[in-house]
Amino acid sequence: MSSAAAPGPRTALVLTASDRSAAGTRDDTSGAILADRLTALGFDVERAVVADEQAEIEEALRAASDVHRLIVTTGGTGLTPRDVTPQATSAIVDYEVPGLAEAIRADGRMRTPFADLSRAVVGVRGRTLIVNTPGSPKAAAESLEAIVAVLDHALETLAGPHDHDGREAREAATIGAAAPRDPDGDAPGDSTEDQHAFGRPVPPILEEDVD
Amino acid sequence: MSSAAAPGPRTALVLTASDRSAAGTRDDTSGAILADRLTALGFDVERAVVADEQAEIEEALRAASDVHRLIVTTGGTGLTPRDVTPQATSAIVDYEVPGLAEAIRADGRMRTPFADLSRAVVGVRGRTLIVNTPGSPKAAAESLEAIVAVLDHALETLAGPHDHDGREAREAATIGAAAPRDPDGDAPGDSTEDQHAFGRPVPPILEEDVD
Amino acid sequence: MSSAAAPGPRTALVLTASDRSAAGTRDDTSGAILADRLTALGFDVERAVVADEQAEIEEALRAASDVHRLIVTTGGTGLTPRDVTPQATSAIVDYEVPGLAEAIRADGRMRTPFADLSRAVVGVRGRTLIVNTPGSPKAAAESLEAIVAVLDHALETLAGPHDHDGREAREAATIGAAAPRDPDGDAPGDSTEDQHAFGRPVPPILEEDVD
Repeated sequence: MSSAAAPGPRTALVLTASDRSAAGTRDDTSGAILADRLTALGFDVERAVVADEQAEIEEALRAASDVHRLIVTTGGTGLTPRDVTPQATSAIVDYEVPGLAEAIRADGRMRTPFADLSRAVVGVRGRTLIVNTPGSPKAAAESLEAIVAVLDHALETLAGPHDHDGREAREAATIGAAAPRDPDGDAPGDSTEDQHAFGRPVPPILEEDVD
Repeated sequence: MSSAAAPGPRTALVLTASDRSAAGTRDDTSGAILADRLTALGFDVERAVVADEQAEIEEALRAASDVHRLIVTTGGTGLTPRDVTPQATSAIVDYEVPGLAEAIRADGRMRTPFADLSRAVVGVRGRTLIVNTPGSPKAAAESLEAIVAVLDHALETLAGPHDHDGREAREAATIGAAAPRDPDGDAPGDSTEDQHAFGRPVPPILEEDVD
Repeated sequence: MSSAAAPGPRTALVLTASDRSAAGTRDDTSGAILADRLTALGFDVERAVVADEQAEIEEALRAASDVHRLIVTTGGTGLTPRDVTPQATSAIVDYEVPGLAEAIRADGRMRTPFADLSRAVVGVRGRTLIVNTPGSPKAAAESLEAIVAVLDHALETLAGPHDHDGREAREAATIGAAAPRDPDGDAPGDSTEDQHAFGRPVPPILEEDVD
């Protein structure tokens, strides 16, 4: 597990992994396109550029996950040993969300079979969703677009409340005593379906379609 | 590896992972729907409910895999840290069956993009197939339905015979002697294609389509 | 990491994992079909057969990855404990390429739901692409066909140059001195998008679609 304080509302980091962009010898077009789209979606966006070094990418992801709710990376998802963004992401997430990576590739596959060469990972660290996209501007933009429909719900779900909040609050309030249960025997936001049951503002379809 | 005795014929456990259902403050509608469907498919179905605690889920899966051929879970597949069913499943399976998890999400994606938020895992422990489904009744039912067409074949394949049977039987019969080979130089049921070659009752299409 | 010298140009190994083929009691039809197809695609093809033993498969994959650019396996991808090719592959690759495994299953799913029972893995070891296919001749052939469109590009990308080449060359040339940067501040072939930027002969669509 990770995370100190919960990240603030609707902030995002666009992280470009590219030796040449980091060296200043290539414009970071992909980063700019992703940032523009996220701004249009209402995010307060920061940008950063790192070289294709796994340790640098991991450190950037770790630091950003403490202050951003969403991190979208671009670059380093290809086949060569120099493409290390997926490895860096897998190393620092608490768990992966394979369906979103599958969805991005299934969407891309309808346009080009080369979409399947992306090893992009999607995962969660603390309360932050991390999404890898390829380095090409078009592929990066299309990858983000492939999951825009579920982005708000995913971030709201991660923002909580979920049980860890309730539990920590209870434990803090009852040091030395048996931790009491909530009146209904459970904490608000226990796992995703319970969040729905507690009346959080989710799309109607979610009440019956998603865990 | 796991498993003591082989599970009996066509029995299944529906395992609900839900803090509120475990506390008795929520009806286990999803568990009931899954159990009804599996009963209609000819399974002898048991049900159990555990809280969203990874250790409890792991223990329930381990114990059930000794006596059931199929375990279908519902709940705890979402995005929050309180959703731990996939982690518990990954921790106790011998290996995953990623294609079935992909198939469930690909099927769900045709109805709603939110299906991709499920981190459901499918895997094998011993001779038992374990399938995660989300906590919502509709998503749980649809997830199971997405793999019903292959369920019988998967369970028959797992039930064997496969080589471990043959080998263990031979070794038990020949302690202290060199283990003999079968007349055809191999044990019946060696890997999946050999099972087909040995004339097990599988769908015709399988003879040419599946390993 | 793995790999000694880079594999030669356009050579491939077809590796059959089958107890019965290894024992000589079953014709290796799948291996023959895969070899014919790869030969038609211009590969210089070798073939080998091993039993369904994880250690044997791993050793064969390790040895072949030093001399072949492509390894296509057939067999041992099914559900039983005797099917161990995916485990052997995962154990020896530097990283997996999940999109290609997803693409193979998505393609197969359009013909039969049983395609999802294949646990086939695709991955990279050194500069070598390793692709698992099922043991049945038809499924093996269809699996290979599902990724033929991207095969050349994948192998060209892996063949480099990528940064490890440049870096090693620079380091070898400057022992005891600070490693100099290339004139443009970076090495040709740094990660995949940079290879594109450096004008490697890739399909036009790739310039804008793939990382």
